[in-house]
Amino acid sequence: MVKLNDETRAAYNRDLLELLQEGEDTAFRLKFLDLHPVDQMEVVQQMKEENRNRFYEIMSAKEIADIFEELNLEEQKDMVLEWENKDMSDIFNYMNADDVADFLGELEEKEREEILTGMDTEEAEDVKELLTYEEETAGSIMTKESIHLHETEKVGDVLNRLRNEAPDAEMIYYLYVVDESEKLAGVVSLRDLLVASLEEKVGNVMSRRVVSVHVNEDQEDVARLIQKYDFLAAPVVSANNQLLGIVTVDDVIDVLEEEATEDLAEFATTRGTTDVNLSAFTAAKRRAPWIILLMFLGMITAGIIGQFEETLEQVVLLSAFIPMLMGSAGNVGTQSLAVVVRSLALGNYEKKGLLWALIRELGTGLVIGFACALTLIILIPFLYGGDLLLAFIVGFSIFLSLGVAAVIGSVVPLIINRLKLDPAIASGPFITTFIDVVSITIYFSMATMLLQFL
Amino acid sequence: MVKLNDETRAAYNRDLLELLQEGEDTAFRLKFLDLHPVDQMEVVQQMKEENRNRFYEIMSAKEIADIFEELNLEEQKDMVLEWENKDMSDIFNYMNADDVADFLGELEEKEREEILTGMDTEEAEDVKELLTYEEETAGSIMTKESIHLHETEKVGDVLNRLRNEAPDAEMIYYLYVVDESEKLAGVVSLRDLLVASLEEKVGNVMSRRVVSVHVNEDQEDVARLIQKYDFLAAPVVSANNQLLGIVTVDDVIDVLEEEATEDLAEFATTRGTTDVNLSAFTAAKRRAPWIILLMFLGMITAGIIGQFEETLEQVVLLSAFIPMLMGSAGNVGTQSLAVVVRSLALGNYEKKGLLWALIRELGTGLVIGFACALTLIILIPFLYGGDLLLAFIVGFSIFLSLGVAAVIGSVVPLIINRLKLDPAIASGPFITTFIDVVSITIYFSMATMLLQFL
Repeated sequence: MVKLNDETRAAYNRDLLELLQEGEDTAFRLKFLDLHPVDQMEVVQQMKEENRNRFYEIMSAKEIADIFEELNLEEQKDMVLEWENKDMSDIFNYMNADDVADFLGELEEKEREEILTGMDTEEAEDVKELLTYEEETAGSIMTKESIHLHETEKVGDVLNRLRNEAPDAEMIYYLYVVDESEKLAGVVSLRDLLVASLEEKVGNVMSRRVVSVHVNEDQEDVARLIQKYDFLAAPVVSANNQLLGIVTVDDVIDVLEEEATEDLAEFATTRGTTDVNLSAFTAAKRRAPWIILLMFLGMITAGIIGQFEETLEQVVLLSAFIPMLMGSAGNVGTQSLAVVVRSLALGNYEKKGLLWALIRELGTGLVIGFACALTLIILIPFLYGGDLLLAFIVGFSIFLSLGVAAVIGSVVPLIINRLKLDPAIASGPFITTFIDVVSITIYFSMATMLLQFL
Repeated sequence: MVKLNDETRAAYNRDLLELLQEGEDTAFRLKFLDLHPVDQMEVVQQMKEENRNRFYEIMSAKEIADIFEELNLEEQKDMVLEWENKDMSDIFNYMNADDVADFLGELEEKEREEILTGMDTEEAEDVKELLTYEEETAGSIMTKESIHLHETEKVGDVLNRLRNEAPDAEMIYYLYVVDESEKLAGVVSLRDLLVASLEEKVGNVMSRRVVSVHVNEDQEDVARLIQKYDFLAAPVVSANNQLLGIVTVDDVIDVLEEEATEDLAEFATTRGTTDVNLSAFTAAKRRAPWIILLMFLGMITAGIIGQFEETLEQVVLLSAFIPMLMGSAGNVGTQSLAVVVRSLALGNYEKKGLLWALIRELGTGLVIGFACALTLIILIPFLYGGDLLLAFIVGFSIFLSLGVAAVIGSVVPLIINRLKLDPAIASGPFITTFIDVVSITIYFSMATMLLQFL
């Protein structure tokens, strides 16, 4: 039905733009505010500039804040530029502190201070605190808008409190309980509260075995935790276990998406360049270093082959199989790399153990290598006029190379992982070049050796 | 703090295993049931087999069901084998229908029927229905345990209903409203209900602009939808808009994880082989076809190089640069592929447009190519004794090849995407081989051409 929804929404949006164009402000507001902020954002982006200026005038700061939160950083900057006439601080007051922090983090010290001083003190304090946490930590993705309960509160009173505070809180379905010194004491779900009797004390319905994350914890670990337990949120605590905020599941989804993109990017050495909004030149500037670095590594293979010039002069056809040999070895290595990197990311090895995985990959590589060798030794004589020796050289080289490739492809990421680094940085191309060198050496050494017996 | 939690849990688990070993059943049950099912599962997996049999005896079917739901399919099969003495159907009665369906889907027709006939009719009906939906569709990941409201119900009555039904329902924070013919009419969050007056009618507090997904919709589209709107769940409807069930955000996280793994796997042609539990031989059997297929494609390059045997005999050193040339072209192509595939997955192109992306990649490729060419033309004469012609051949070939590589790397996935297929199947190696052929041809044609003028 998403498709259908899209169509109806397109029509709906056209009507909205007309109403605004024709100055039917009240009618527009009514129809517009009926939309989900995400959809409101789409409409705003479709407006002509002059209309957008009128739009800002007829909407309240709160209503604009809701839309602003849905934009990505670049879009937010564009929108702010259109706001001379609006009081930005006023709009930021209505946003979640974490969204404000994300945006202000991109601004100059000076602009940031201006906006913060214009904002309500309490709200500004939250933002300033969030700005102090490092990127990619729990602190950087947590929200401050969470409701804290106390063990002594009655369930009925809590439900009444929620009626008033619910609209502002980002997550009211998991409620965290703190003691008098704001230390995390337990968790109770709104579900538990509903089922409990209204006279019951929170302390008696809450669970004390609450899983929390430290504010400096890596955001991916937080994501994995929430994913493992199917939580809707997790509490973020300070070193002395004080409740600082919560991370919600929707942030977690974005984090996992980010990490998956990073893995793929590392894999293709496009780190930090998957952003499609970069100009060709900027993208080139970021990617070229990798390519040139790898090209230099490629010069090593060139050097090795150069060493075997004499062998090549005897059998020029040897060079014809260089691409195929290196390609196959590279592919097997990349397969092993992908398997290991992904399995580490998903923690699949916890039970079987890493050594097991290593031996598995070696075995896999050799079996595949044997199949390839057999194929070539039968095939090459037909294709290249009965040269059995050449066929044997190529076949045996591919058998060895594929075995080695599988080991390299799995050992490297495992080592990197042991060093507590992200295994994905053992990106494909580096391993491939490594494998190239090994397979080329195997290939030509064998050729030189055997040619002596001709 | 996860680390710390892990340590404390390890100690906690040891105590548990001791209690069970010493037959302290009641003490064990008390301490054990205090754990989250995910953690209970870990304990069960650490038990000695004889202890596990006693464990099954002292736990109720409901308690075992909670643990069973947390296991992956293989672990579930292992556990079932240990159950001769337990009534399986009884345990499945306490599980969510979707989890039961996932498991039964793996069994033989006969076993499946046996279990289903042993289960409660109503529960069994739900499972049978879920078994009819295709894999990777909304229907295959939705849950039936959702609470349906009616517009005429009073908020107060709904809250009372929730007190009774909450324990069984999988998601009570989003409640979907249906009309008398079970057609989806709106949605109301528990948050809205709490804020509303108890006498208010559901019809007046619910939102009618509810976004729903069709039961046959691809599971990734469902995931993207929930991610876009930061929903905690989405309703699944039939062709005539009847509410069939709901998809919850925790399922969505697993789907996105799955898709990311698939993308990476396609990328390294390890499709369906990232499962680390496969034996070396099985893994090889699944991976070998790709490698051998690619090897045959590699034979094409071998054939092409073979055609230029004469050129090679004149300048044997030409072959020394084959790996470097093909490597660089391959890397640039892979970068473009990664950028395009990922951007398509995240829908980044919606605004800028695909043609723009294509031109961007071409530009990027040429800029990088120019940088590489320059480097080589300066470098090669130094490394290989002043042979300027060779340097020029290599340099100009790499410039052209990298431009072409970028285009191939981005055009192919874009075309595949237009054909409504998963762009990730344009997996790296295939594109690389394609690029190999082109760059080799450029390289040797140019060499042959220029050597005539010597």
